[in-house]
Amino acid sequence: MAELRHITSAKDFGFLDFLEIFRTAEELRAIYNDPVKRLSLMYLLKKANGEAFRFRILYSGASTRTIGSFEDAIETMGGEVKTNPLEFSSAAKGETHRSTLRIHGPRCDCIIIRDDKDDYAAKKMAEAAEEYGLATVVIDGGSGSRQHSTQALVDPYTIWRRDKLRFMNGELTLALVGDLSHSRTIHSNLIGLSQFGGKVFLVGPEEENVPDWVFSEIDTNKISVEKIINPRDIAALVDYWYITRIQDNLRKGKRLSKKQIEHYIRVYGASIRKYARTDSWFLHPLPANQEYPEKIDLMDSRFIHYEQADNGFFVRMALLKLIFVPTLDIRTILAEQQSVWVSGYFSRPIELPAQLINAVCPEPSCPRVRVHTNWVDMDPEVKKHLIKAKTVCDRCHPQFYIAK
Amino acid sequence: MAELRHITSAKDFGFLDFLEIFRTAEELRAIYNDPVKRLSLMYLLKKANGEAFRFRILYSGASTRTIGSFEDAIETMGGEVKTNPLEFSSAAKGETHRSTLRIHGPRCDCIIIRDDKDDYAAKKMAEAAEEYGLATVVIDGGSGSRQHSTQALVDPYTIWRRDKLRFMNGELTLALVGDLSHSRTIHSNLIGLSQFGGKVFLVGPEEENVPDWVFSEIDTNKISVEKIINPRDIAALVDYWYITRIQDNLRKGKRLSKKQIEHYIRVYGASIRKYARTDSWFLHPLPANQEYPEKIDLMDSRFIHYEQADNGFFVRMALLKLIFVPTLDIRTILAEQQSVWVSGYFSRPIELPAQLINAVCPEPSCPRVRVHTNWVDMDPEVKKHLIKAKTVCDRCHPQFYIAK
Amino acid sequence: MAELRHITSAKDFGFLDFLEIFRTAEELRAIYNDPVKRLSLMYLLKKANGEAFRFRILYSGASTRTIGSFEDAIETMGGEVKTNPLEFSSAAKGETHRSTLRIHGPRCDCIIIRDDKDDYAAKKMAEAAEEYGLATVVIDGGSGSRQHSTQALVDPYTIWRRDKLRFMNGELTLALVGDLSHSRTIHSNLIGLSQFGGKVFLVGPEEENVPDWVFSEIDTNKISVEKIINPRDIAALVDYWYITRIQDNLRKGKRLSKKQIEHYIRVYGASIRKYARTDSWFLHPLPANQEYPEKIDLMDSRFIHYEQADNGFFVRMALLKLIFVPTLDIRTILAEQQSVWVSGYFSRPIELPAQLINAVCPEPSCPRVRVHTNWVDMDPEVKKHLIKAKTVCDRCHPQFYIAK
Repeated sequence: MAELRHITSAKDFGFLDFLEIFRTAEELRAIYNDPVKRLSLMYLLKKANGEAFRFRILYSGASTRTIGSFEDAIETMGGEVKTNPLEFSSAAKGETHRSTLRIHGPRCDCIIIRDDKDDYAAKKMAEAAEEYGLATVVIDGGSGSRQHSTQALVDPYTIWRRDKLRFMNGELTLALVGDLSHSRTIHSNLIGLSQFGGKVFLVGPEEENVPDWVFSEIDTNKISVEKIINPRDIAALVDYWYITRIQDNLRKGKRLSKKQIEHYIRVYGASIRKYARTDSWFLHPLPANQEYPEKIDLMDSRFIHYEQADNGFFVRMALLKLIFVPTLDIRTILAEQQSVWVSGYFSRPIELPAQLINAVCPEPSCPRVRVHTNWVDMDPEVKKHLIKAKTVCDRCHPQFYIAK
Repeated sequence: MAELRHITSAKDFGFLDFLEIFRTAEELRAIYNDPVKRLSLMYLLKKANGEAFRFRILYSGASTRTIGSFEDAIETMGGEVKTNPLEFSSAAKGETHRSTLRIHGPRCDCIIIRDDKDDYAAKKMAEAAEEYGLATVVIDGGSGSRQHSTQALVDPYTIWRRDKLRFMNGELTLALVGDLSHSRTIHSNLIGLSQFGGKVFLVGPEEENVPDWVFSEIDTNKISVEKIINPRDIAALVDYWYITRIQDNLRKGKRLSKKQIEHYIRVYGASIRKYARTDSWFLHPLPANQEYPEKIDLMDSRFIHYEQADNGFFVRMALLKLIFVPTLDIRTILAEQQSVWVSGYFSRPIELPAQLINAVCPEPSCPRVRVHTNWVDMDPEVKKHLIKAKTVCDRCHPQFYIAK
Repeated sequence: MAELRHITSAKDFGFLDFLEIFRTAEELRAIYNDPVKRLSLMYLLKKANGEAFRFRILYSGASTRTIGSFEDAIETMGGEVKTNPLEFSSAAKGETHRSTLRIHGPRCDCIIIRDDKDDYAAKKMAEAAEEYGLATVVIDGGSGSRQHSTQALVDPYTIWRRDKLRFMNGELTLALVGDLSHSRTIHSNLIGLSQFGGKVFLVGPEEENVPDWVFSEIDTNKISVEKIINPRDIAALVDYWYITRIQDNLRKGKRLSKKQIEHYIRVYGASIRKYARTDSWFLHPLPANQEYPEKIDLMDSRFIHYEQADNGFFVRMALLKLIFVPTLDIRTILAEQQSVWVSGYFSRPIELPAQLINAVCPEPSCPRVRVHTNWVDMDPEVKKHLIKAKTVCDRCHPQFYIAK
């Protein structure tokens, strides 16, 4: 897997990135769901010096899921996060995204930026980070009506969990329904799904179309895309329906007429369920408006948008893990919580939390590990699973040993 | 005491609940006011696995006291809290309270909701939590012009602290003054006070009345309620005056005329002090407007609204304690901070922080407690006060003992 | 150095205060920039009982730098901070700053207040804290168009770091350029700079002038101030240019005409660089508007506004250190992180983290320090650097020794 850094487009994820993120999400989910192990996750977003990674979420517009799940993911993994509305940052006084990045960057490991008004918010910040040589990672949390890059993880992950093999083999038929021009989640999902292949129907009113730039970012050899006006025409084929609301807040100028909205709600909403296959599934990025009755999930079990929303938490944890501590084997943070037996200091062996060990000797057969400043012995078989600083011990390199 | 869960109305508190909350508030206050002991409170909002309880405060409209005191209470007790304006959640895009609860619920132990526009905000969320089988607790922090459930703890607690016996015996005379129709704190207080009995005068302009639904929730056999237009008529009787401002932000449509406001300020404000009894007291939920001169508390010591505001912190700590760790004896978190003597590992007894003990043998006469993975002996009289996991020790059930 | 408490004006800093803050900022910077030592800073904003100092940042209007750097400074130093927009506090319902202070004060060690609409926001809060006998410290983070007290630390600190001796000797020539009437940073800087002496040109349009009250707060014997219309006239003399934007958000009523704005941008902006000395420097409090092209710092290395912004973090850390833990020698928090050898408990000396020592005997020659509840011996030379509670040991005052 290539190293992930800034996430400014769904295109930043390759096929193997998706699979690695999904696999990691499953691993983190299993730990999270075990109350005894859950606290181990607190060791993930920590630097070598023990410091927590520091995040800032900057946002304009409204968000429940994206920001809530990022916040929860960061805190569950032991990072520190501050969330600031852009309305209350100097953005309101004309500060550019580039300048905001430069100001927070030197003391911030990651900025998650969501801006409903600027299609290139994340890109601008990522460029500024490079320009100023800052280590700060920029993650798109929704840029105007263009992209919502991490939503392209949430939705495919939900499909993958239900239909692993068929999805990875490109055997599924998906319908992205609704506000094709302005739904940034449709744009990001289409880019993401194109890595998996399969058939995608774009279903929406005649005048609505996915913008051309999206097509320039996908491999149309791998995926088959077709525009459909009436969802009923393809209902027999579709495995997953992806419904969206009219993106009022992302439309610039041209609002829909009342008649158009009524038509939209009637044709492109939950009514599709009347003729959709009984073994098909309905996704929705939420929030929903009239196109989607509030308790539809209680009436029809094909509507799995809350499962989809819950997945956002796990997949975002996985993304952060792979960006910030890519080489860390998650199993080792569990090993860290265990007890180990050490000998050679007191007159008999004692059992200690593995956390008290602060270094191990890198010689594979050497049993020496350091507890505080004392080298003691432990089972080399257990020792090899510990993630600790490597320091040559006093026996392996006795010349470094300074007698006290 | 019945178990407390969702708090969506002052009616959720019975007479014994009030007394238990008040008693707990006093106990927590004593610990908080002792700088040495204060940090012990950090152990209250923790789960069995050591994880902190997680809170989200969601609010529309403005708040200093309710949200500030909940935040401080949660953090003082070791919980984690995030505060999000609803203006910046997807509520702004049409998301319902029901849906917001379902999204945050799975990763959130408690949502405190304040919504100046929705009379049933907390109720909707509490229903959704039950509908989806979520453990999330919902607490009303002010719902429209209807209720402000925890304010019904703050104000009676303030009265109780000054007049314990007379209040509990229903011997006090109280006047709830001002915006009877729209003051949600008057509604909640009336419901709460009805548990204590006594005489309550509702004092306000002729056209203002406490809504009928409030009367349907109180036991009018226990409390005597009377509507009064002119506060002067009852001044000789009143022990506690509860002044309120005109609830501009909670009135829908019908604003008062300038003349009406002037009349309100003249008759239903701090001017009452001119003829109120010298041994009566003045409460106010704050913030105050013109009805209440800013420095009135410095001019007249009967005005104890800041004492009342300070009480909000302690009574909200008590509420959270009783909801989230109801069976925990507060005295034991103090015991946890002490030192204990253990023997049987080293050649002589050593003194340890009680926190290092992670389990005790449940046999009352057995002296065995576990430090890390080793069973050692301690005084059974001291042992019985420790709040620890119960695990049968290696001596009491030697068959479970696996020799190392 | 006099003790610092409320900071409501740049005038609260005397010449020696400036120097002590600058020196402390350098010391903190060195620790912060060393990843191994950085975490030691977490011990700074702690009370004797181990509790973190609690901060609230209340603000109206927009801020990136002031609030961001205060937040980062507080958290880096181990304090706790909550940031609340005043729009969402009861201020929106008419609550006064005085009342807000009284509500938060009892549970809050410091309030940092920024209010773009109230010239006396911080002063009102500081007065209320005194009036109610609250320990809460009030720090001005920008009061209307009047002052921005801590900005008067950031800008002189930036100059001092580049030209220590010339600045302290009053040998520099500075030009404060732009919105002389409304730029609160110009007002605060002028008051601050007047402590250092030197020559200051106030450069702005004919109708703009620094208000009279500013001049009444500075010592005009020490500093020479002159009003200039055209920056070109003095370009050969100026060592530091301080550019500001038109303070749209701080102007009450009288906005500039389009023509005036164009003139302002042409004359009082970055165009000055065309004739400024090659060895002069350009500062700007940011955010910048049209007067200052976005990437000017990449085109012209004399523009050091980002260095200036970065300095805000260090100088604010220093300020908080000097207010809240003035007597703490920063070198000792580093000593705390070290290991020490103690003897007298086990049969041979052991090495321990110095943090485990909770008290030292105040007798200089006595080697006794307390680890948990046991008195042990250590090298008195090392002992004297530890910052610990002083308790007379069992040997120096054997009558206090209670045998176990």
